[in-house]
Amino acid sequence: MNAFGRLFRITIFGESHGESVGVNIDGCPAGLSLSVEDFLADIERRKGGTQKGTTPRKEDDLPIFKSGVFNGRTTGAPLTILFENKNTRSTDYEKQRAVPRPGHADFVAHEKFGGYEDFRGGGHFSGRLTVALVAAGVIAKKLLATVGAGVPVRASILEIGGETDLEKGLQKAIDAKDTIGGIVECRVEGLPIGLGEPFFDSVESVLSHAVFAIPAIRGIEFGTGFAAARMFGSQHNDAIEDVSGRTRTNHAGGVVGGISNGNELVFRIAVKPTSSTPKEQLTLNWETSEQEIFSVKGRHDLCIALRVPVVLEAVTALVLTDLLLLEQRIPRRIGVREIPR
Amino acid sequence: MNAFGRLFRITIFGESHGESVGVNIDGCPAGLSLSVEDFLADIERRKGGTQKGTTPRKEDDLPIFKSGVFNGRTTGAPLTILFENKNTRSTDYEKQRAVPRPGHADFVAHEKFGGYEDFRGGGHFSGRLTVALVAAGVIAKKLLATVGAGVPVRASILEIGGETDLEKGLQKAIDAKDTIGGIVECRVEGLPIGLGEPFFDSVESVLSHAVFAIPAIRGIEFGTGFAAARMFGSQHNDAIEDVSGRTRTNHAGGVVGGISNGNELVFRIAVKPTSSTPKEQLTLNWETSEQEIFSVKGRHDLCIALRVPVVLEAVTALVLTDLLLLEQRIPRRIGVREIPR
Amino acid sequence: MNAFGRLFRITIFGESHGESVGVNIDGCPAGLSLSVEDFLADIERRKGGTQKGTTPRKEDDLPIFKSGVFNGRTTGAPLTILFENKNTRSTDYEKQRAVPRPGHADFVAHEKFGGYEDFRGGGHFSGRLTVALVAAGVIAKKLLATVGAGVPVRASILEIGGETDLEKGLQKAIDAKDTIGGIVECRVEGLPIGLGEPFFDSVESVLSHAVFAIPAIRGIEFGTGFAAARMFGSQHNDAIEDVSGRTRTNHAGGVVGGISNGNELVFRIAVKPTSSTPKEQLTLNWETSEQEIFSVKGRHDLCIALRVPVVLEAVTALVLTDLLLLEQRIPRRIGVREIPR
Amino acid sequence: MNAFGRLFRITIFGESHGESVGVNIDGCPAGLSLSVEDFLADIERRKGGTQKGTTPRKEDDLPIFKSGVFNGRTTGAPLTILFENKNTRSTDYEKQRAVPRPGHADFVAHEKFGGYEDFRGGGHFSGRLTVALVAAGVIAKKLLATVGAGVPVRASILEIGGETDLEKGLQKAIDAKDTIGGIVECRVEGLPIGLGEPFFDSVESVLSHAVFAIPAIRGIEFGTGFAAARMFGSQHNDAIEDVSGRTRTNHAGGVVGGISNGNELVFRIAVKPTSSTPKEQLTLNWETSEQEIFSVKGRHDLCIALRVPVVLEAVTALVLTDLLLLEQRIPRRIGVREIPR
Repeated sequence: MNAFGRLFRITIFGESHGESVGVNIDGCPAGLSLSVEDFLADIERRKGGTQKGTTPRKEDDLPIFKSGVFNGRTTGAPLTILFENKNTRSTDYEKQRAVPRPGHADFVAHEKFGGYEDFRGGGHFSGRLTVALVAAGVIAKKLLATVGAGVPVRASILEIGGETDLEKGLQKAIDAKDTIGGIVECRVEGLPIGLGEPFFDSVESVLSHAVFAIPAIRGIEFGTGFAAARMFGSQHNDAIEDVSGRTRTNHAGGVVGGISNGNELVFRIAVKPTSSTPKEQLTLNWETSEQEIFSVKGRHDLCIALRVPVVLEAVTALVLTDLLLLEQRIPRRIGVREIPR
Repeated sequence: MNAFGRLFRITIFGESHGESVGVNIDGCPAGLSLSVEDFLADIERRKGGTQKGTTPRKEDDLPIFKSGVFNGRTTGAPLTILFENKNTRSTDYEKQRAVPRPGHADFVAHEKFGGYEDFRGGGHFSGRLTVALVAAGVIAKKLLATVGAGVPVRASILEIGGETDLEKGLQKAIDAKDTIGGIVECRVEGLPIGLGEPFFDSVESVLSHAVFAIPAIRGIEFGTGFAAARMFGSQHNDAIEDVSGRTRTNHAGGVVGGISNGNELVFRIAVKPTSSTPKEQLTLNWETSEQEIFSVKGRHDLCIALRVPVVLEAVTALVLTDLLLLEQRIPRRIGVREIPR
Repeated sequence: MNAFGRLFRITIFGESHGESVGVNIDGCPAGLSLSVEDFLADIERRKGGTQKGTTPRKEDDLPIFKSGVFNGRTTGAPLTILFENKNTRSTDYEKQRAVPRPGHADFVAHEKFGGYEDFRGGGHFSGRLTVALVAAGVIAKKLLATVGAGVPVRASILEIGGETDLEKGLQKAIDAKDTIGGIVECRVEGLPIGLGEPFFDSVESVLSHAVFAIPAIRGIEFGTGFAAARMFGSQHNDAIEDVSGRTRTNHAGGVVGGISNGNELVFRIAVKPTSSTPKEQLTLNWETSEQEIFSVKGRHDLCIALRVPVVLEAVTALVLTDLLLLEQRIPRRIGVREIPR
Repeated sequence: MNAFGRLFRITIFGESHGESVGVNIDGCPAGLSLSVEDFLADIERRKGGTQKGTTPRKEDDLPIFKSGVFNGRTTGAPLTILFENKNTRSTDYEKQRAVPRPGHADFVAHEKFGGYEDFRGGGHFSGRLTVALVAAGVIAKKLLATVGAGVPVRASILEIGGETDLEKGLQKAIDAKDTIGGIVECRVEGLPIGLGEPFFDSVESVLSHAVFAIPAIRGIEFGTGFAAARMFGSQHNDAIEDVSGRTRTNHAGGVVGGISNGNELVFRIAVKPTSSTPKEQLTLNWETSEQEIFSVKGRHDLCIALRVPVVLEAVTALVLTDLLLLEQRIPRRIGVREIPR
């Protein structure tokens, strides 16, 4: 479904080339200050900036508050934030109707929704919807900042095309006239012990659930991750050093038994190469029922991973906010407003 | 929470050294035949059999139906299945009370539940609860068998301690007097196109949610997985060959845009080395607030990964059953009973 | 929470004097035709028309589709429909800030949300939000029309101020310079046998859950309702006449054991008199902490019950659509679009 | 579905003449003391005691804890409580197989579950399952006792067969050799202001949802209820007297705008006459497809309403516990156990 979260519940909606994309947030505590400015930095980060490898499309995305904000603060009622779609050239897509793009959701969306799906530019499956995730993430991050000394969520790119020198990785793609994948890591400090709800809502369960909603993610690992499969138990176990739960090593990545253990939360995700590559490829033509050569003409990202860190931060912040509300570490009201008594 | 699934909803309960563990299933279609025999093979597989590396503990687990079965068939009312705990020597655990075992949930459970948790043998965090998952999985597999030509779910161990020769991997652990991890792969054939519910309930999202409820899992990857991060787009994209959606390659692992594409579903998980290693290790003593040497005396698995395949099959079957019900590919009644009209 | 439904899930948002109110619908089957015209009749009915007893405020409410509709049909992605608020004179309300209106949510909203609530005209608690319910109801009714020979939902006013002659009831209020309540009945034909999900999602449970979300409702009864408490069993039981399940009488109101029995669904609700009465009343003044005289000056409904039937139809249609999807009587796609193959 | 509640979530299961009935509770705070004795009084009350009008069947119901209790306290893991079914004479029911009892769920259950339902004595639709509700209610009441000065929930019978003198009402039924209905009222003191979650989880919405899960309920009304439909607004509005929110009158029954207002919660429900009446009645015979005369021979309640108060208290306590957890008025741990530090 298009909603996620138990207490801090978001619903995202919209299509790439429809009128708008947006998010509804139900369960946001009342009293959180909120302004358009709060969103600008993360929205800008999502565009991938002036880096090589991201498209030059200028979206000028500004959040439009349709409900839930009053006098610059959240009211406790559901928030609705819209982003209008501009500069959409649908005709580019209409002519591709008969040819599902390889690596994209065109084919499966068509089968699932009986041909009624908005197919323009991926429609509801488009990466465009991540702007709604980012907006919800901004609000979640502001809530996380109220917990203890703050709970900063920071994601960064570890490698592009197998290279930790990211320029080098992008150059690979440019040279090959192709697209390339990458690995992104997320780290969170300041989490209290005890988040995560056995048996099914382990920290890893709910994080991975949210993470795999981001388009193009192919894997996730916590702490030492896949490398743990090759370690001995005595190597992998993290020795607890004191009653605060601090461990010398952090192979567990901050989660034991599905519960946060007070150490830094660490996980990594694999981002596949952008499906829309300039290279020629084979795909099916529905009209002819034959395969045909296909290649993408327009502007497209060389490496979608460049845009992922801020989206990953967003979904991580959403999940942690929900777990902190469940554990009653975030209150239902942020302070109390001076009232006329 | 301890429940999972939207339409085929399971709740698991119990503790390692309590009276019982079990599962409640709400939403199971009526009319499915069910007998104790249906469960024996998978329950036996979970024990790890006579292989090196699993504990000799004989559990003789037989499912006890407490509700929801009548005349050998499911009734449409919730099923409750219990497994009694036998042969539990709690005293082994009581004396360890002050010493949270490294790599186990002892420490976090204690902090989360204020000291009231059943700490014996991991309590509710124990791998013992996976017998309840396996039981639910047996039922899900029987439902999957009713879809089309059947939807077989098969998991197997790919490597132990980095070795594809599993005996060799276990020998590593035996030689080192330590425990070891492994990698398990799951494959599912026969899935229809169109499973998965955008935006948040992608096939990967719901599968990974369920998978990370299994103790000791540290990572999951779909199709080409982490290796995709180092591929070019033109390499990674799977060319659609015909209108059935068949693709030449299967780098996507059967899921595109979060939706099943009719090809084989393929994913792998990383299993950490068993936390209970015979090696001496440092941990905290709560009474003294100092670190102390700790080592496990009793019987314990060398490699928990050996027990994982049948559990992985179970959670996979649960997730797919739920998605198939959502997509109305499994009916609410399996046939109609001859009625006295 | 602000969402309702398991498979056909609506989220409503907005405030009386904010920018807009609206609804998001997740789980609407793809392929349903939808146009602005579909909504006009029910939106008009909600205004109470030209009858005495409703306010002359002209809202000119037109639904604005923000997502989920493409080429005049639903896409299977979430629908978002907005209604802009116009002609709102907030200043009327700002000066009343210190005086919670008797019978309204002003006091409790203030306590619950710590003073951050949008207090203008009831904010998120306003009857204004029922326009979003009505819009969702229009879509649900169109889905119900696809089931069998159609499932028409019809609500009507039974009495106003104790009078079945409604003009007479309204005149009572006019003469008393006060407001008045009423009773509304809802009837649904064409429901299949078997809707309702034991144990907690009986037809009555989910209907009453939705109905009590409508402001000003104080009671609900099914079939013979409260009068059943004074009947003998032999009087109340409905004799089944044939294998279609038809009963001679319908004291059960179409629901037995929480499950629809194929007869007409019948239930009634009590609507309290409009809280905003022109009569002088006592209430608290938060600034002085003393009671003071309060009376409503502006335009207000004499009898809110006049607006309720279309809202009651809407929530009833929402509930039944959800139950029919659960029972797989409504498919996930309405037909299949001619596709280019 | 068979589960209810967002944070304090219960799942009930079992059949009247199956092996057992029971309840699973997920989300119960850790550290609550719990013993078999806690349950005895309410279980006894459910039997209707030695009053006329209840069946002499001695059930000797004792709760059996299968999970979630350790050293006499809840652990934070899910609780499972079983009640074994004894003294069940299934043969009484088997011979009635072809004849759905009038007023019972026999007919609809058969249609819904395709003939696979456990039809003996109503199976999963039986009032027998209310013992599981009562057990969950005992735990909820213990949690309510920890809030402020306590939140006592008290239900009582207002009338039987239209008589406030209950003996007189029962005598009516005895004289008529028939069964009779009644009205039950529930009152709760000590609730804080602010419970209830707009827009759909109003206090009335969640209470009525739970209440209509109790078999035989036909109506519910809050505060003045249906009588409000005949009142003027100036009569119905409750004047707020002071900043604590106390009102002079309580026509609202403690709920305004769906939110608790700090006054006593008051609501009433209508209980239909017991369906199993000794009177002869017409019903269908499935084998012959003809109507035939039917009458109940065995022991049955004259007036099921006599057993309802404790069940009504239970579901009310469950709902309020959930709302108090949502509002963070009940903590996730009841105290902290002395731990070995």
